[in-house]
Amino acid sequence: MSQPTTTQADRKQAKPEKNRPATLPVPGDSAVAGVLADVLDGPYAEAKNKLRPLLNDASFLPPVEGSLDELRAANLEKVKAVAASGEIQPSFSPLNGGEGKVTAGVTSLELIAQVNNSVCIKSGVQFGLWGGAIDALGTERHVKFAQGAMDLSMLGCFAMTEMGHGSNVQHVETTATFDPETQEFIINSPTPSSKKAYIGNAARDGRWAAVFAQLYTPDSEESRGVHCFIVRIREEDGTDAPGVTTSDHGHKGGLLGVDNGMIMFDHVRIPRENLLNRFADVTEDGTYVSPIENPNRRFFTMLGTLVRGRMGVGASAAGATRAGLALAVKYANVRRQFEAGDESKEARLIDYRQHRRRLLIPLAKSYALMTFQNAILQRFQNQIDAQFAGDWDPARPTKEQDRAGREMETLAAIFKATASTHANSTLQTCREACGGAGYMSENLLTTFRADVDIFTTFEGDDTILRQLAGKNLLTAYGWEAASWSPFDIAKHVASNVGDILARRSGIAAGIETISDRVTGTGSLFEADTQLRILQYREEQVLESLVRRVQSARKMDRAEAAKVIDRAQDHLLAMADAYGDRMLLQSMIEAEGQLEEGSTARAVFEQVRDLFALNAIVEHADWYQEHGALSAGRSKAAKAAVNDLVDSLGPWSETLVDAFKIPQVVLDRPMMTNGGTDLS
Amino acid sequence: MSQPTTTQADRKQAKPEKNRPATLPVPGDSAVAGVLADVLDGPYAEAKNKLRPLLNDASFLPPVEGSLDELRAANLEKVKAVAASGEIQPSFSPLNGGEGKVTAGVTSLELIAQVNNSVCIKSGVQFGLWGGAIDALGTERHVKFAQGAMDLSMLGCFAMTEMGHGSNVQHVETTATFDPETQEFIINSPTPSSKKAYIGNAARDGRWAAVFAQLYTPDSEESRGVHCFIVRIREEDGTDAPGVTTSDHGHKGGLLGVDNGMIMFDHVRIPRENLLNRFADVTEDGTYVSPIENPNRRFFTMLGTLVRGRMGVGASAAGATRAGLALAVKYANVRRQFEAGDESKEARLIDYRQHRRRLLIPLAKSYALMTFQNAILQRFQNQIDAQFAGDWDPARPTKEQDRAGREMETLAAIFKATASTHANSTLQTCREACGGAGYMSENLLTTFRADVDIFTTFEGDDTILRQLAGKNLLTAYGWEAASWSPFDIAKHVASNVGDILARRSGIAAGIETISDRVTGTGSLFEADTQLRILQYREEQVLESLVRRVQSARKMDRAEAAKVIDRAQDHLLAMADAYGDRMLLQSMIEAEGQLEEGSTARAVFEQVRDLFALNAIVEHADWYQEHGALSAGRSKAAKAAVNDLVDSLGPWSETLVDAFKIPQVVLDRPMMTNGGTDLS
Repeated sequence: MSQPTTTQADRKQAKPEKNRPATLPVPGDSAVAGVLADVLDGPYAEAKNKLRPLLNDASFLPPVEGSLDELRAANLEKVKAVAASGEIQPSFSPLNGGEGKVTAGVTSLELIAQVNNSVCIKSGVQFGLWGGAIDALGTERHVKFAQGAMDLSMLGCFAMTEMGHGSNVQHVETTATFDPETQEFIINSPTPSSKKAYIGNAARDGRWAAVFAQLYTPDSEESRGVHCFIVRIREEDGTDAPGVTTSDHGHKGGLLGVDNGMIMFDHVRIPRENLLNRFADVTEDGTYVSPIENPNRRFFTMLGTLVRGRMGVGASAAGATRAGLALAVKYANVRRQFEAGDESKEARLIDYRQHRRRLLIPLAKSYALMTFQNAILQRFQNQIDAQFAGDWDPARPTKEQDRAGREMETLAAIFKATASTHANSTLQTCREACGGAGYMSENLLTTFRADVDIFTTFEGDDTILRQLAGKNLLTAYGWEAASWSPFDIAKHVASNVGDILARRSGIAAGIETISDRVTGTGSLFEADTQLRILQYREEQVLESLVRRVQSARKMDRAEAAKVIDRAQDHLLAMADAYGDRMLLQSMIEAEGQLEEGSTARAVFEQVRDLFALNAIVEHADWYQEHGALSAGRSKAAKAAVNDLVDSLGPWSETLVDAFKIPQVVLDRPMMTNGGTDLS
Repeated sequence: MSQPTTTQADRKQAKPEKNRPATLPVPGDSAVAGVLADVLDGPYAEAKNKLRPLLNDASFLPPVEGSLDELRAANLEKVKAVAASGEIQPSFSPLNGGEGKVTAGVTSLELIAQVNNSVCIKSGVQFGLWGGAIDALGTERHVKFAQGAMDLSMLGCFAMTEMGHGSNVQHVETTATFDPETQEFIINSPTPSSKKAYIGNAARDGRWAAVFAQLYTPDSEESRGVHCFIVRIREEDGTDAPGVTTSDHGHKGGLLGVDNGMIMFDHVRIPRENLLNRFADVTEDGTYVSPIENPNRRFFTMLGTLVRGRMGVGASAAGATRAGLALAVKYANVRRQFEAGDESKEARLIDYRQHRRRLLIPLAKSYALMTFQNAILQRFQNQIDAQFAGDWDPARPTKEQDRAGREMETLAAIFKATASTHANSTLQTCREACGGAGYMSENLLTTFRADVDIFTTFEGDDTILRQLAGKNLLTAYGWEAASWSPFDIAKHVASNVGDILARRSGIAAGIETISDRVTGTGSLFEADTQLRILQYREEQVLESLVRRVQSARKMDRAEAAKVIDRAQDHLLAMADAYGDRMLLQSMIEAEGQLEEGSTARAVFEQVRDLFALNAIVEHADWYQEHGALSAGRSKAAKAAVNDLVDSLGPWSETLVDAFKIPQVVLDRPMMTNGGTDLS
């Protein structure tokens, strides 16, 4: 990445005072936006800057009027333009003609989401889910399918979710029964609840599907577990393939360009080779073979594909949020209402503290999420690289790799849940901050909000994901934790909190030494102090959670389930505390890239202060209950949040300029008609 | 209202233990739903039960597909059905052929919002705003317009908001200049920012508009202030009237059946009689006359019409929320996912504590809002009745009436802001709690959410309304507070907190004596304790706010503005604390209608406990900072919230059955397909 340069206003601002943010130069220096953008783009600046011009095109903006079929057809054309750009295909493995750069897929979706989320999600379904399943679970014999996904000659679905089983994937009911006579699998939907549901590309465009089903082989009565199969669902002319019944979910709360539908299979026969056989296969004589002995481990190894999807959803949610913030912050800098100090002129919205609070607090979190995304994406890429290099066999990982893989899953779950929840609340705030203008579709905010709504559900419900993360932490990354019943959790809870804490790692290599590097005076404006306060909550919540759950060890199933149910809010609090700490760590890491003493550094530090202090304030009740913050310090943190939004107010446009949102998104009617100071 | 009857399970449950909710009979007793419904419907049960059958009609459900013109045309037909029912017109004054029952308008909108918010809002525009403006501001000479609004022969707009002035009504730029030569007013839009914007009925159906404009008469250089005029905007064939230019806002984030548009006037001439002259008139020779001397008071007397609108918006938001809660709670009682204690069967969503927390905490607030609505609606009706009886002249109120009127404004502002914010967050939670099914338009939740989105903005932005309430409280109901600049606020802040507190009243007559009636042991489960805890916050926030603002008394304009801006979050906190206390008071009042010792009473008390304790928990940080709750008591309140959602879980369906949502709304596909236990 390019080195941040020193700007004009550098070295002018004062040192931070004990309980006040440093005084920033006013007005904001727009050159700083470029420096901040480099930090936010991180290692992906080059790739992003290549894609941005393509997206800065009014024809990419989401249409809102027209029939569903028109909206879907228009959306497909845009996905074709994405494919033609060639920027997303490097995410595929070299085997399939890609470059094994998983980052390319994620950052592409992130940028597309800043312009049009229907294009983003349909692209995600095609390249990330349908293509991604083949890429991650297939072998040489599936290259043609992967390439068909990459060049759009084969439009496909990711058919995992069923009507009766959304979150509980391990219990999907669709069956795949091997018939040695014909060397085929018979794909079948045995019950109404086994219908594949909410599947993207299934209502209209999909011709193929990666179908997750319980595998039955002649050598066993029991299911071999959930496996993935390539099934043709429609003929090229769009009629259902024999034995397949597709249907249309019709109108949804958003993402109108994406054709979600249902799929049922009535004993559909597919060749034996259509089993994606990287981690398990069925031989010609019907024998089941897999390099992974434990069925649970096999299931979760295959489900590893979801990590990629969750990174994509999180990045897209975060991208759309930044676009919304840019719109609302820019509007707040032009729109005037009510006189303030000067009787002759109404004040700009940004001149009101409550308005600054509403926009700048989430903006700080968007900065934190961006640095977190960069950090975990890099770590994920390292993991993939190690696999391609042969140093990491996903079927037989070392103990350390196993733990790291599970930690990656936790990080992705936290990222996805945090980013998608943040997206919904922030985009809603942005809409409200733009008043009536915000409700007009031409100003994009309501479409963005409606589109990201479902991000909190797909690729894993946010509550379930936070629970998954909590379980992972609670069981010190026991790799099967995700599948555990409350009873299992109780049995396997880590016996030693110290053990879990010792294993708790940062994201990048250097991060662990932060406490050594930063020696704090205890001021709330010191990164070290902030980190220690967040870590304290993480550790205490964990300790209390372990204590609660351990009591269930000797109980029977029903009693243990009750205890775990009663600890559910603590499990979620655990995940949130961990997430807050990780986000802060990423911010501290990122700010190290900025020249000390530079204005950009000073501004970034205040954004970090705002994120950290707000995270503390949001749990001020807990800190006081646990004697970890005095009443005075709690009040000081609240006052500091107010001081910070005041200090950053004049910098608000610079902060969103650093997001580099395509200009075509920002050129909204409200900026000139409803926003211009016409008084 | 009908008297709650004693149900079978009555008198069976235990007394509340010290720190635990009383044990309720399990499973819930559905007969209790009827008893609770009577309390929730309150004095309006009869009127509501008359309207409910009309709305229980699938053709009333909101369509989501079709062109804007189709959606708008279909919506207009439904408004005609509402008009034909005759249930909403009694809200007009006897002069215009109504019954002066403002409650009829509010409760009608509330019920319609449970089925279709486009119908609700278009009805609100037609009867409540356009009709309501004529009814409240007009005189004998405007009866034909009021009746045209009532029978739909005159479709009209409420043209207050301008592009440049949404919240700042006092500074609208449209002018109405009297021309004595022709005995006409000339209505004109002098600037682009004076364009009337976001006006319902303006894009398509409106033929008339109640236009708010600065009045200029020959006897003065200066504006006489904002007055309201009846202006024809379109000919019967739909073409713009001479000098009028209407335009269409097009697609919005919701309420697609409502045709919002813009209106500009180019020296449009209207007869002198079209000034709504109840509070001010212009004589034939151009002399301005008004029974209200002070221009500010005149402005706010005319703006009193907004109180009615805010009650309607709040009631509609609350109604839509209850429909959403009924859907999500019922889904949670049928939908199963993941095994819990019993390995053979997946648990219902409601069996998970986090799910109970997500749904039952907002449900308790919905109960509180319903009792609050009934209380303030009754008070508002009393005020109107006194006016019709000649005991209360709105142009020359007594000092006591003046204060009561201002307090009514505060209550309506709090109600509208609380209900609309609650609607958005709760409907979003309901959508998420129904997972993918919640995102399908056929299940209604996303349409409801998108429709109520703008409720937080129209009829007064929620932040501005909370601020207005805060200002009213801060200045001990100085009646001009709403128009005050920060400088004025600083000058007029009450000098004596005790003075404000002494004036602080309850809603109904009896409410003040609650503290005497209920003698508490100090248990968190006692109404008295809860009320004292909420009152403490209200008083302390007020005291601290007064202290802060008083310092600005001797400052100049710019400095004072800064101090007020810095106190903005305290002003909002003041309004919220007041709102919490008032909601709790209403609940305590309402529960007095239930027979002591009955199951219905026990259930209702726990709903009240849940609302109150959650309101305390949400501010647990503040209470500890101010030494008002110990760490132990704060933790106990949190534990109590969990215990309460556990206790009320089996009663959740009964609680939403008491909302009496039309069955056609509840008959959603997810209840049978995605929801049925098919495992």
